[in-house]
Amino acid sequence: MDATVRPDFAKGGGLITAVAVDADNGEVLMVAGMNEAAYDATLETGIVHYWSRSRGKLWRKGESSGNEQTLVELRFDCDGDAIVVRVHQQGPACHEGYRSCFHRTLAADGSLAVDAERLRTPDEMYGNQG
Amino acid sequence: MDATVRPDFAKGGGLITAVAVDADNGEVLMVAGMNEAAYDATLETGIVHYWSRSRGKLWRKGESSGNEQTLVELRFDCDGDAIVVRVHQQGPACHEGYRSCFHRTLAADGSLAVDAERLRTPDEMYGNQG
Repeated sequence: MDATVRPDFAKGGGLITAVAVDADNGEVLMVAGMNEAAYDATLETGIVHYWSRSRGKLWRKGESSGNEQTLVELRFDCDGDAIVVRVHQQGPACHEGYRSCFHRTLAADGSLAVDAERLRTPDEMYGNQG
Repeated sequence: MDATVRPDFAKGGGLITAVAVDADNGEVLMVAGMNEAAYDATLETGIVHYWSRSRGKLWRKGESSGNEQTLVELRFDCDGDAIVVRVHQQGPACHEGYRSCFHRTLAADGSLAVDAERLRTPDEMYGNQG
């Protein structure tokens, strides 16, 4: 019997929603889409892959920054169209150099306040590619 | 000056991705979409609202089950098209009666294993509506 369960990619037009969570402290690091190829590559390699909507290509997280995510645990939601990936995050998850992409909180006056430390600058992560 | 910042609803075709997190222990409870009306209703009432894709309507979480989410903090991601809502969750977040919708983990054999306790049955939450 093949017990392998697959997410429901069709529901989201080929993409499921993946929430990356720091396996060490439970912090939500980022949210991105995964297509079937990204999901399969994640399971096969143990390194988290996403589908980059902006670049229209398979995206191995950390391929240019070095900030890889090693898969620790993969959880399905009740509908099968969203997953939580618990990961060991190398360095910052956010392309702006913060540990989490969710480093800004909505303040009472409607503005956004950064309440996290910037670990690296984008230049340090990606170099000056101009 | 109006400092009010808005999420980027246009990028996701009118919807942003909202990740609900238990404010007490950081557990990811659920993922759902929010349109502008749901986002505004959440801020205005302090009770989390989503857009129900399946029912095509504004959805005050807990409106039929009683399992409301009181907003504690709202965080923006770097792209502005996903938010984390830290909430006080009343009872189970999941319509299957589990605290979190992500109550199943992918096991080594490819099957899904429930590793959480069911708090209520759907009948207890929604009654027998047959």
